[in-house]
Amino acid sequence: MSLIPPRTLKGFRDHLPESMLLREKIIGIARRIYQAYGYAPIDTPALEYEEILIGKGGAETDKQLYRFEDHGGRRVGMRFDLTVPLARFAAQHIGDLGTPLKRYQIATVWRGENTQRGRYREFMQCDFDTIGTQSIVADIETALVIHDLLLAIGFDRFTIRINNRKILTGILETLDLLDRATEILRSLDKLAKIGRERTEAEMVEACGVSHKQANQILALSDLAGSNEDILDQVEKLTADSPTGLEGTAQLRQVVSALEAAGVPNSRVRLDVSIARGLDYYTGTIYETFLDALPDIGSICSGGRYDNLAGLYTRTSLPGVGASLGLDRLLAAMEEVNMVEKASTPAEVFMVYFDAERLNDYLKLAADLRAAGLRVELYGEPKKIGQQLKYADRRGHSLAVVAGSREFESGTCQLKNLRSGKSLALSLAGGPDELIATIHKQLAE
Amino acid sequence: MSLIPPRTLKGFRDHLPESMLLREKIIGIARRIYQAYGYAPIDTPALEYEEILIGKGGAETDKQLYRFEDHGGRRVGMRFDLTVPLARFAAQHIGDLGTPLKRYQIATVWRGENTQRGRYREFMQCDFDTIGTQSIVADIETALVIHDLLLAIGFDRFTIRINNRKILTGILETLDLLDRATEILRSLDKLAKIGRERTEAEMVEACGVSHKQANQILALSDLAGSNEDILDQVEKLTADSPTGLEGTAQLRQVVSALEAAGVPNSRVRLDVSIARGLDYYTGTIYETFLDALPDIGSICSGGRYDNLAGLYTRTSLPGVGASLGLDRLLAAMEEVNMVEKASTPAEVFMVYFDAERLNDYLKLAADLRAAGLRVELYGEPKKIGQQLKYADRRGHSLAVVAGSREFESGTCQLKNLRSGKSLALSLAGGPDELIATIHKQLAE
Repeated sequence: MSLIPPRTLKGFRDHLPESMLLREKIIGIARRIYQAYGYAPIDTPALEYEEILIGKGGAETDKQLYRFEDHGGRRVGMRFDLTVPLARFAAQHIGDLGTPLKRYQIATVWRGENTQRGRYREFMQCDFDTIGTQSIVADIETALVIHDLLLAIGFDRFTIRINNRKILTGILETLDLLDRATEILRSLDKLAKIGRERTEAEMVEACGVSHKQANQILALSDLAGSNEDILDQVEKLTADSPTGLEGTAQLRQVVSALEAAGVPNSRVRLDVSIARGLDYYTGTIYETFLDALPDIGSICSGGRYDNLAGLYTRTSLPGVGASLGLDRLLAAMEEVNMVEKASTPAEVFMVYFDAERLNDYLKLAADLRAAGLRVELYGEPKKIGQQLKYADRRGHSLAVVAGSREFESGTCQLKNLRSGKSLALSLAGGPDELIATIHKQLAE
Repeated sequence: MSLIPPRTLKGFRDHLPESMLLREKIIGIARRIYQAYGYAPIDTPALEYEEILIGKGGAETDKQLYRFEDHGGRRVGMRFDLTVPLARFAAQHIGDLGTPLKRYQIATVWRGENTQRGRYREFMQCDFDTIGTQSIVADIETALVIHDLLLAIGFDRFTIRINNRKILTGILETLDLLDRATEILRSLDKLAKIGRERTEAEMVEACGVSHKQANQILALSDLAGSNEDILDQVEKLTADSPTGLEGTAQLRQVVSALEAAGVPNSRVRLDVSIARGLDYYTGTIYETFLDALPDIGSICSGGRYDNLAGLYTRTSLPGVGASLGLDRLLAAMEEVNMVEKASTPAEVFMVYFDAERLNDYLKLAADLRAAGLRVELYGEPKKIGQQLKYADRRGHSLAVVAGSREFESGTCQLKNLRSGKSLALSLAGGPDELIATIHKQLAE
């Protein structure tokens, strides 16, 4: 019989234990932090009616959409993000659930992307949003969640860059350029990439603004000093625009609240030249950069929007939220050596040496598990060296070694697989000494 | 503008917070128990090449497969279970990962089922398997995991029914009926549903066995007494068949080991008439029933198989594992009132009463979160009654109530939303007293 070649589709990945353990850990942390602020989980189907998805993410997204006809002749598509399903979900259920709706969704999405850009066709998004309220508290909490999340993952030096769309609107209003906002913001977005001079040239050529106006817009990226200083300068720049002043006041309140809640000033930076996503966002905007790896881009981004679900309901649903970029985050952790190399979740490996004593091994393993330890018992009574090699390769921390002699004398050996040192322990009074020693060695 | 009707596809579900909180909790428990035995997580793509999936689950599964042509003209399908992807995964990676491979996978699968049977077209599977070993340790651990899992979920009275395919093979071998095994087992499988008399009749008519032979097979379901008694009787029945004796010896070892590992005898029952899945399984077989709800069927089933991935590799990969039926389990928990009615993950609700004091609320909430509590701060300074109504509806346990008067005097109220009782607490020395009282009330 000829074999079917075992392979995955281009742009799709298997996650092996080592990678998956880390993914589950990070997702668990995200879940814990989201919940600490009262965000509740929801889930939506992978497949939606095509009409729900199509045209909601622009022409590029439509092209990438996995879509087909199902068994009942319905046109269906696989979700390409979690925002469109959230909009559909909110339109359908907000009456029952009430507002504010604080929800998170951690789920897989699919896009038939060009894989040459190093992108995957299947990846995970970790979104959290507060729907149905204009309250600044939700804006503040969004930044707090981002902060607590990165800290809990293990990052210490990172910067949450904050902006408010209304400030840019205010500047453009002051300069009487509101009608060209989209083009101007598109140019502004290129600032980091192409530099100030070329951005100014493009603004003049493509957007038809004067050199003076372009300079006034680009001056936003020059604002320096403490967040307080920047706010004072922005307040002057937007003094003639009620919208601009509102944005400045909101930004001021967010900055003050973050400080009150214990976020160090060094981790929050006002950057009123952030233009990305401004087509969609209408208030506060967030981007998050690792100080050691600014070039990988923002690993947690989001913002406030005026109306989430206008395509599906006449109920106006303003909201604010952000999304953790899991793949980008994991790449960053790999790069700064934050990744533990282990392909097993079990700290403790138990050698199975004496075939006649299987029930003793099982009992001891059960005792350790009852004490909250994760224990892998080797399945076959092979040579001890072979078993320890397996344990080493998997990344277990400790090995419990016992044979008939040990069981008879009521002892066992605890081998630290990192240091190589062994310790003889008594089992005569039960497993308590062993358990205590394991906990102690794991904490070291 | 006309609205797009917000709706999900037939057979697909949104999971609202209340349902999703419970799902995440159960999945978290499954993950914890699987890991306690050293099973490591993996994941595979939702989409596979059609040739990987087609023909692997029978004609019915092929019909239900969601399949289509992707952007690159490839024929692809959505996974309909986690076993076929595991087989493909093992064939592809076992060389790198080595054996034994202990893996779990908790993931969504899709089947275009007839929804009239009350089935969903999208559901979650929670599989764990040990691949690449014949060792009975893996069979024993499979039962231990099932046991620990149900106990951790909160069930106390349940029965793991265990069988070994080799025993039935031995009986049929003894009766010289091995060539008709498939038909006979298919009839035997109907025993519970159609009764002994009709099963016997069917065996005689459809399988061409004598009444005496049918009776000898059906006698398996009459075996009574302790597990030891049943084993002794089975040993006699299979005395002439080496395969049967091997099955009996394996079953004996599993039963003895479960007892040694602390599983109460009452939760393990040998049932050598279990025939379900016998086309596929070759050794130990598991089914798990809740004593209070036998009719909902097995909520955790599995068994040992000889060769997982023969379609994709010439490496022989025996294995053993089981799968938790999440939807069935959740239905059962609902039925026996094990489900807490809460749509928020946060135990603590914090009233936002005095708009001028937002930063004080944020600071206090941050302090509680730093102590491991989950706190939802209400987003708008509305009337206190309205806020507490919201908290009640969401299922928060406790509410922290403070206004300007309280902040000035360094106090707050802690309202127990279950009992309705309030307590005045001092914040003068920091939040420690409040935190201690919250922990105490939550533990009650």
